Amino acid sequence: NMMRVAVIGGEGIGPEVTAQASRVLAWFSERRRLPVEVAEAEFGLEAYRRTGKVIPPETRAAIEGADAILFGATGGPETAEVPPEARREGSLLKLRRSLDLYANLRPIVTDPALYDSAPLKERVLNGVDFVIVRELSSGIYFGEPRGIESRPDGSRRGFNTNSYTSEEIRRVARFAFELARSRRGRLCSVDKANVMEASVLWREEVIALHADEFPDIKLSHMYVDNAAMQIVRAPSQFDVMVTDNIFGDILSDCAAMAAGSLGMLPSASLGPADAQGRRTALYEPVHGSAPDIAGRGIANPLGSILSVAMMLRLTLGRPDDAILLERAVGDALAHGARTADIAEPGRAPVSTAAMGDAVLASLDRL
Amino acid sequence: NMMRVAVIGGEGIGPEVTAQASRVLAWFSERRRLPVEVAEAEFGLEAYRRTGKVIPPETRAAIEGADAILFGATGGPETAEVPPEARREGSLLKLRRSLDLYANLRPIVTDPALYDSAPLKERVLNGVDFVIVRELSSGIYFGEPRGIESRPDGSRRGFNTNSYTSEEIRRVARFAFELARSRRGRLCSVDKANVMEASVLWREEVIALHADEFPDIKLSHMYVDNAAMQIVRAPSQFDVMVTDNIFGDILSDCAAMAAGSLGMLPSASLGPADAQGRRTALYEPVHGSAPDIAGRGIANPLGSILSVAMMLRLTLGRPDDAILLERAVGDALAHGARTADIAEPGRAPVSTAAMGDAVLASLDRL
Ligand SMILES: CC(C)[C@H](C(=O)O)[C@@H](O)C(=O)O
Ligand SMILES: CC(C)[C@H](C(=O)O)[C@@H](O)C(=O)O
Repeated sequence: NMMRVAVIGGEGIGPEVTAQASRVLAWFSERRRLPVEVAEAEFGLEAYRRTGKVIPPETRAAIEGADAILFGATGGPETAEVPPEARREGSLLKLRRSLDLYANLRPIVTDPALYDSAPLKERVLNGVDFVIVRELSSGIYFGEPRGIESRPDGSRRGFNTNSYTSEEIRRVARFAFELARSRRGRLCSVDKANVMEASVLWREEVIALHADEFPDIKLSHMYVDNAAMQIVRAPSQFDVMVTDNIFGDILSDCAAMAAGSLGMLPSASLGPADAQGRRTALYEPVHGSAPDIAGRGIANPLGSILSVAMMLRLTLGRPDDAILLERAVGDALAHGARTADIAEPGRAPVSTAAMGDAVLASLDRL
Repeated sequence: NMMRVAVIGGEGIGPEVTAQASRVLAWFSERRRLPVEVAEAEFGLEAYRRTGKVIPPETRAAIEGADAILFGATGGPETAEVPPEARREGSLLKLRRSLDLYANLRPIVTDPALYDSAPLKERVLNGVDFVIVRELSSGIYFGEPRGIESRPDGSRRGFNTNSYTSEEIRRVARFAFELARSRRGRLCSVDKANVMEASVLWREEVIALHADEFPDIKLSHMYVDNAAMQIVRAPSQFDVMVTDNIFGDILSDCAAMAAGSLGMLPSASLGPADAQGRRTALYEPVHGSAPDIAGRGIANPLGSILSVAMMLRLTLGRPDDAILLERAVGDALAHGARTADIAEPGRAPVSTAAMGDAVLASLDRL
């Protein structure tokens, strides 16, 4: 039976990188008989100009009918013409929340071809292969009360609430424990339990769940400040890391340099499993809309292409094809394809499309 | 007139590193006629065992009568015997809050001697010299309401409040602008204004203050996730960075590796200026109590020693002596002194005390 993929390029470099990921998806459909039906959908500034909505009804319909969403990027200064209210209504945050995408997986894997590749060799560290599982549907991103209030003395106060329930903590922790079980069996939970009660509860629930259901997993705990340092110092110590929404946001960008560039990193955002074990799933590169380079055809599409590999593994039931695609990316890099963000000095970088070509050529070859 | 310095070694490696910093302070008192009177005071587990208080009354008195506090470290698993209530009562957080230490300065400076020093050469980057100004008295560390509540269905909810008033933002931003003015004239304000109202207000107040009082400063804004990445990718782009309490906590640890080791980093925490421009000031290394290496005499005392340099500059009115001490640290490193955290493979590291000796020898020589 056909699986439906909604492809939403979005804004900035989103459409450019997503176009290459779509070519890769088409390759699997044609060459590997992957039963997917792709529907492109509008999102963001262009959609707003045409329809008055950042997410038009057809896009909502495409999202609701999809087994997986391949998302590009959103945001940036060029979208100032969209009023804040319309922007909020159609924000990625709102989408994550309404789809209840609570488990955000951000794998950090370094490619051997980049280890010895100047100027990256000073930062791409050998043997890094870990996954950050970021809670994506709660915490300070969504907690109430929040706002800016005026005070009697004429000054103002801005406030947000970091809030986690036992259930919110347990479901993302369970996901992370299960992932660890399928990998090297180690989970590091990151919090700030020496300062925040929300983190105290986080730690208690993770410890209880470990005792109840995952005694076989080696569990450790780290404060977020130390975790930020360890990710820079010695990222190969990690297997799976689980943390809250805002810490996951910061730590994954902090980890990006270990992989050479933010442009290399894919992500998957998953909702609750239904009775058949299917989950709503949104795949997107970790990078944003990068308005400064949008439209120039120089963005790195590998974050988006590797998001397709995650889709093959997690939604489309094709773990072998996922591995094939990851190998093809490695092969393209080994053959010297480098976009500007990972280029060696003195060697001309390739375009977004040429990087797509290189991956397709590797797929044909492997 | 005599200046009074309260020296509080605290727990873990705190007393060991502080002992070396005290020797350095004594050197300035003897050789450079620095008019300081040093009073040692107890803090932490030992104090609790003897007096039933983490901060005994004599220590409080010493703190209140001091022009500056030189603090070591606190915390760690070895203090489990102190009940939570007593621990909270005597916590560093409570001390920061009660002294209204709102401006926490964390300079990140790389030493040329470490640039070419394996295995650090992969991470110590040339020409890094910036200061993180972290708001230290408010934000999610102290915001109310906070707690863990039981819910009707038997589950629990942990919550904290991130709260900033206009005044809290302006006073730390003003400090950072002034610091930038005395340096290279650039300030980067870090927030998460695309998600938190507390950050929206932060950004608005920083922008308003810039327009009103600091139009000569080049102001930029960065989201915290991007800042974490930029600190790893290209830290030399920064001059002064100002951010909130929790972001400053994470980003300064993230930056530590650029300097080679957390053990190298000093800090100053300052309160409001009185009519004479004097500020309550607490100086401490950025590292914590490191219980795993406590008592072994191998900790790096340079974070504490460089905190004395900050004290010479910011409290004791001796900028020339501050520079002399910083040069002496550089000289000691240039002569090959390396504690374990910054040691080269195959070369024996020196002890905490020997690093102190090396700095004193350099002071004698320069
Ligand atoms: C754009 C922003 C709201 C978003 C986030 O903070 O979640 C982004 O940084 C991310 O990591 O996907
Ligand atoms: C020990 C801890 C509460 C403290 C903090 O988070 O402020 C420490 O990490 C620091 O940076 O001084």
